[in-house]
Amino acid sequence: MSIIVGYVPTKEGRAALRRAAQEAQLRRTKLVVVNSHRGGRDFDSTEAERFENELSQVQSTLDAEGIEHEVRALVRGNEPSEDLIAVAEESDADFIVIGLRRRTPVGKLILGSNAQRILLDAACPVLAVKADEGD
Amino acid sequence: MSIIVGYVPTKEGRAALRRAAQEAQLRRTKLVVVNSHRGGRDFDSTEAERFENELSQVQSTLDAEGIEHEVRALVRGNEPSEDLIAVAEESDADFIVIGLRRRTPVGKLILGSNAQRILLDAACPVLAVKADEGD
Repeated sequence: MSIIVGYVPTKEGRAALRRAAQEAQLRRTKLVVVNSHRGGRDFDSTEAERFENELSQVQSTLDAEGIEHEVRALVRGNEPSEDLIAVAEESDADFIVIGLRRRTPVGKLILGSNAQRILLDAACPVLAVKADEGD
Repeated sequence: MSIIVGYVPTKEGRAALRRAAQEAQLRRTKLVVVNSHRGGRDFDSTEAERFENELSQVQSTLDAEGIEHEVRALVRGNEPSEDLIAVAEESDADFIVIGLRRRTPVGKLILGSNAQRILLDAACPVLAVKADEGD
């Protein structure tokens, strides 16, 4: 069993990662951090480098916390939802953790298409986490 | 801390309850089962009775499993999402568990409005669970 988290370097992504790490510790299961990027023309070398730096920071934090983990940076032209669901199936995931934007008081925010797809199409449960006010 | 589950007598509702009970056991926290019904003209005495029977069955199962729990049947004219979020706030919930329908191979199912509202508006994380094939 393992816990899969979709990581992006936003406050929602960091909130999801933090919660996923707590759940992995509680259950003593492995944490799989998936950072999925469609790639393509917009994915230049500066962005690729920033992306690698962030992931290596994530790795150091998890190392320091003693959480068994694996970081998978996927750039294979898929939607993040497809990559997350595929990794969850391969890994016999206990659940997937995703970050959601908090609705603003005036905002008629609807769920993003990636979040909807993960919620509807993943065979395993999905834990949706919001960022704290202070994040 | 506590875990809140939105219970309805469908296979998705039962899957959510089962998972919530496991999570409560794992964390040794209290489980709050919320069955929210708008009430009104369509809520006749036969339905009210069926509703009570189901909840007392839920209670017996949780008793037998030794899970500390509280069952709250709310009929106060609210949407289920409003009731669930209100109970989660009162109870300082660790997270809310909800059941989701599985997408059919041909179905372009979108998330129901209650599920969307809970996911977007709850301050705490939300664990979305699907029913197993065999349920």
